[in-house]
Amino acid sequence: MLKGHQSWIFEKKPKIISTATVVGPFEGQGPLANDFDIIHGDLYLGQDSWEKAERVLLEESTQLAIEKARLTKEQIQFYFGGDLMNQIISSSFAARTLSIPYIGMFGACSTSMESLALASFIVNHGGAKYALAGTGSHNASVEKQFRYPTEYGSQKPPTAQFTVTGSGAAVVSLEGDGPSVTSATIGRVIDMGITDPFNMGAAMAPAAVDTIEAHFRDLQIKPSHYDLIVTGDLSKVGYEIAEDLLKRHNIPMEETTYKDCGMMIYDYNKQKVQSGASGCGCSAVVTYGHLLNRIRKGDLKRILVVATGALLSPISFQQGESIPCIAHAVSIER
Amino acid sequence: MLKGHQSWIFEKKPKIISTATVVGPFEGQGPLANDFDIIHGDLYLGQDSWEKAERVLLEESTQLAIEKARLTKEQIQFYFGGDLMNQIISSSFAARTLSIPYIGMFGACSTSMESLALASFIVNHGGAKYALAGTGSHNASVEKQFRYPTEYGSQKPPTAQFTVTGSGAAVVSLEGDGPSVTSATIGRVIDMGITDPFNMGAAMAPAAVDTIEAHFRDLQIKPSHYDLIVTGDLSKVGYEIAEDLLKRHNIPMEETTYKDCGMMIYDYNKQKVQSGASGCGCSAVVTYGHLLNRIRKGDLKRILVVATGALLSPISFQQGESIPCIAHAVSIER
Repeated sequence: MLKGHQSWIFEKKPKIISTATVVGPFEGQGPLANDFDIIHGDLYLGQDSWEKAERVLLEESTQLAIEKARLTKEQIQFYFGGDLMNQIISSSFAARTLSIPYIGMFGACSTSMESLALASFIVNHGGAKYALAGTGSHNASVEKQFRYPTEYGSQKPPTAQFTVTGSGAAVVSLEGDGPSVTSATIGRVIDMGITDPFNMGAAMAPAAVDTIEAHFRDLQIKPSHYDLIVTGDLSKVGYEIAEDLLKRHNIPMEETTYKDCGMMIYDYNKQKVQSGASGCGCSAVVTYGHLLNRIRKGDLKRILVVATGALLSPISFQQGESIPCIAHAVSIER
Repeated sequence: MLKGHQSWIFEKKPKIISTATVVGPFEGQGPLANDFDIIHGDLYLGQDSWEKAERVLLEESTQLAIEKARLTKEQIQFYFGGDLMNQIISSSFAARTLSIPYIGMFGACSTSMESLALASFIVNHGGAKYALAGTGSHNASVEKQFRYPTEYGSQKPPTAQFTVTGSGAAVVSLEGDGPSVTSATIGRVIDMGITDPFNMGAAMAPAAVDTIEAHFRDLQIKPSHYDLIVTGDLSKVGYEIAEDLLKRHNIPMEETTYKDCGMMIYDYNKQKVQSGASGCGCSAVVTYGHLLNRIRKGDLKRILVVATGALLSPISFQQGESIPCIAHAVSIER
């Protein structure tokens, strides 16, 4: 049901009946390692290209999520997926392997919550008995496509972020047990004129705040409704800007913990990730791994995940355009 | 409501209350010229790059569709859009201009019906009062990205297709008048091993037939339910393969007219388009322009539009991969 201008309330509270997360070696050395289902030791995942390795991440997370739900892929009606590769080819190949009717999406790093929001809407309204939502990214394929191949060894400024190698998937249904998806807010494209692809956090922060503000306005609730609000991948630089903007917009965050997935997955003291983490895989594995585990354990009751996406294109960047950004928010409750 | 395994029935029959189509000069010389709202004489649309011209096509079709519905953009809750450009940047920039909450999609040339299916589902179930669906393509930006810049003047084989310069958009609502969207079938990824990007029709035909078959199985109806069934952009080569496959799969098409949008927009005698037309804009402008005009005039009563998409990526192609394809079907009735 539409609530306010851009939000949905899911009256039937669709449940996330299973999740699966698959990450690379570097993520396996970080503080959330115990929350991931599969940690690969080889960044190539036994493939002969980074793009093929990314596809395997997505295939593994989606298949494992289906398996953990004790379902077969034939029982899943729709797969909502996307990723950062041109033509979201990793997701399309995963959809080919799964052979599940497929709704391809592109929201850059906001795809985790874009796909979860739509899967939840469809399930809530009887459009599917079981829907699968998933996304992922691979550090080397993304760096190669958007910046420079990592083999070049180019130096990065402190505002740069490190793309997560990882994929997360979730099965949503009205039947079964698990945390509930209770609402979603779909974001607008916000572009404050930032053109630096090494400072995505600053570009995305205003989009995150715009969606957070819309969420509270539409649902007529306050931040204190949640134990935890997380943004997807603003990392240090973007997080500080978002904190500042939240204050300026009079969004009272005092009683709520506000964190960013991009600051949670790596250990800043030991891992050189500049501002922090980014990528479709970032909010996906932190949410579907770490945060849902905390909800399942009873450590968290209500959270709002605001996945942030820089809809950056190397071509439009080369043509002098700034970076359009977006954020989609989904609330998850025990 | 889910019907069968991969289809939705829209009980409330959401209406397409307005459509708008914008095309380039070459499409304006074809047999459907009278069905388009805006025909540009300049392929650059006054911009300094093909990509920027493509963006303008999308901005114009979406804004005109809203205007023709006698609405303002503030009254539209969600924009479902996508295109063929990497990171669907044309749609994202159009979404920035519109400032409407945005759900980015990627289904290659199937995006027209992918976005209409989702917009209709959301509207049918009260998730939006007004939703906008739109897509488009530009011949020169697409050729440059997927094959060779047209300026190279490279020769093409007779199986090649000509990408439509055009954009189509539709406003969907339960309130107002217009043709109704009654059902949708979401396709699976089908890949028969074809690797030739100059023969997309052959690659996509099996996906079209798979979705058509699923549609009739799920809805328990026969092709004769429709006056017209159109595929999106198989063009001559793919159309013949689809016709043959439909026979082999015992789908009785005798009492139904079966056509392809890719064979309708250009005049084969005067326009050199090899096998025919393709691109996100192809099924979008033929459906939202020509076919809906015929429904409005009473010339057609019930149609099934099966938009076909080759989820081709230059990178995966270079890495030896075949072309994964998909098709999404939407039924529209007077």
